[in-house]
Amino acid sequence: MTMRFTHETLGQRVVFAPGDAPAAVAAEVEALHASRVMLIASEREAALADPIAAGLPVALRHDEVVMHVPVPVAERARAAAAAASVDAIVTVGGGSTTGLGKAVALTTGLPIVAVPTTYAGSEATDVWGLTEGETKTTGVDARVLPRSIVYDATLLTSLPAELAVASGLNALAHGVDAMWGPRADPIDRALAGEAIRGLAEGLPAVARDGSSVAGVEQTLYGAYLAAVAFASAGSGLHHKICHVLGGMFNLPHAQTHAVVLPHVLAVNAPNAPEAAARIAAAFGTASAVDGLAALRAAVDAPRALRDFGMPEDGIPRAVDPILAAAPANNPTPLTEDNVTALLRAAWEGDLG
Amino acid sequence: MTMRFTHETLGQRVVFAPGDAPAAVAAEVEALHASRVMLIASEREAALADPIAAGLPVALRHDEVVMHVPVPVAERARAAAAAASVDAIVTVGGGSTTGLGKAVALTTGLPIVAVPTTYAGSEATDVWGLTEGETKTTGVDARVLPRSIVYDATLLTSLPAELAVASGLNALAHGVDAMWGPRADPIDRALAGEAIRGLAEGLPAVARDGSSVAGVEQTLYGAYLAAVAFASAGSGLHHKICHVLGGMFNLPHAQTHAVVLPHVLAVNAPNAPEAAARIAAAFGTASAVDGLAALRAAVDAPRALRDFGMPEDGIPRAVDPILAAAPANNPTPLTEDNVTALLRAAWEGDLG
Repeated sequence: MTMRFTHETLGQRVVFAPGDAPAAVAAEVEALHASRVMLIASEREAALADPIAAGLPVALRHDEVVMHVPVPVAERARAAAAAASVDAIVTVGGGSTTGLGKAVALTTGLPIVAVPTTYAGSEATDVWGLTEGETKTTGVDARVLPRSIVYDATLLTSLPAELAVASGLNALAHGVDAMWGPRADPIDRALAGEAIRGLAEGLPAVARDGSSVAGVEQTLYGAYLAAVAFASAGSGLHHKICHVLGGMFNLPHAQTHAVVLPHVLAVNAPNAPEAAARIAAAFGTASAVDGLAALRAAVDAPRALRDFGMPEDGIPRAVDPILAAAPANNPTPLTEDNVTALLRAAWEGDLG
Repeated sequence: MTMRFTHETLGQRVVFAPGDAPAAVAAEVEALHASRVMLIASEREAALADPIAAGLPVALRHDEVVMHVPVPVAERARAAAAAASVDAIVTVGGGSTTGLGKAVALTTGLPIVAVPTTYAGSEATDVWGLTEGETKTTGVDARVLPRSIVYDATLLTSLPAELAVASGLNALAHGVDAMWGPRADPIDRALAGEAIRGLAEGLPAVARDGSSVAGVEQTLYGAYLAAVAFASAGSGLHHKICHVLGGMFNLPHAQTHAVVLPHVLAVNAPNAPEAAARIAAAFGTASAVDGLAALRAAVDAPRALRDFGMPEDGIPRAVDPILAAAPANNPTPLTEDNVTALLRAAWEGDLG
């Protein structure tokens, strides 16, 4: 095998500080020499954000957080940041909160300290997204990569179990799909393997007991590395399928990912031996497919797209858009036949 | 286990381009918008550097490269860079060549594209070093981290086998010692595990046939990741011991590392179960100690410090300096007894 690839490592500080977010965030803000902080947290996250805010020189607290970051919401946040002359952004929340911080950083260059409260992973990437009406625009810009991440597992112990598992399975999909994304390289696969190892250890513990700090921190660790690997490797077959299905049938994001993942793994594993071996090793099982099945059973993952509103005649309709969107270098060459079979199995919940 | 650590990821582009260094380096220089390149390569490396230079806007070629970067050598390189108004540095060579480029970058802020011709690993770190007389000064500065590395395995296929193996074993010591360096965290251990996997695959192939591109590129890949992990984790027990012994008895660098490593592993493995498991998995052997022994046998590694000029009465003399230098959080607590036993075994070449 010849090694021929370009890997771009993004520079970032990552702090794991269970129970200590206030002190850790204050230290990161001080290292930035910031004295006027914009703290972004939704009303729902206010109770988590308050103790962090108490230790910071907060010049502006902003709570208008909306999914997918609509442009008017971003514009209002940018205007508020300018009016308050802030010199740093601290986000406390999930992907939408981090995303709003990135939207402000994109036009202002303000540094971000991100404090995640879900397993979304956006904090580890230089990807931003904005929506205007129905249209989502995404891009890559060094300015939106948070300078520091502070992971405090105790901020996630009150997540409802179902939401925690859905968010963790979404992270798992980042790790698995990073194995064969269009730009995937051995470094991505090594990081993704370590990510899957963390998620395989953490997620069942979180599913059993959402207040397990040990389970949450392993899950956070895995979700972080999965996001790093996924950002470098690019969207693979799994994310292309979920994007097409979500758009055509308005399916719920997390459940779609959870249902589709084992079917993509089953299609790709036979033609991606290095990826399959790394996934199996991460799960500690005889095969990659076995490992994912065991984890899905442990967390009681959803099984069938028909349970979430996808019509049966959607199967043939989705085939061509998926063939058009799939990466050209997917390990298993895709055909109308094998994509149809994949979709039917995911629709029925047939795991073979 | 509670996860409590700060990990700083250094931002850098890494290009693996076997056979294609000239085009790959030209692309990296162009991405920097540089038009006046300082190309640093020793006379010994001139034949490797010529084809790379041919594709670049070279304003200055500099060949005064000296081990450990003496201050007057650095000063002359800085003066030459200023006189020629260069806007980027390309280094083609081993650790001393990369080190000279870093010395120039330290005072000028010029970006570096590093093209390694050994497994030294300096290209992946933000550590610089200068010597003045007998005194070596080292420091950490973001300016000295090369912006890009171009690894072209064909540049290393003419390394003499003995030198290649010594350089590769030095890289292996980075990977093993990163498992328990003073700042070692799970990310470092994951990267170090992947590094050891690459070195375990590549080094025996290089020892059998130095012209094996496949062997060299696996070794380069492992050496790169070992350096990344080591720079983050900091010098562990192994490097502290080698530093003390090298300074007291003027021992050869590479051989000292090769002899000492299995003894440090034997002392630490019983009290570092995660590290030991990762090392064993990387080697694909039942235990970490077995894996290192098998690799050492495959490359015919040196066995005894007495073969390299260390006197027997040096054993008791080295104990106190080693106890003073060792990281406080070494997995196995160190005592006069166990350090003496370690040194005696390394001196005699007794691998148990």
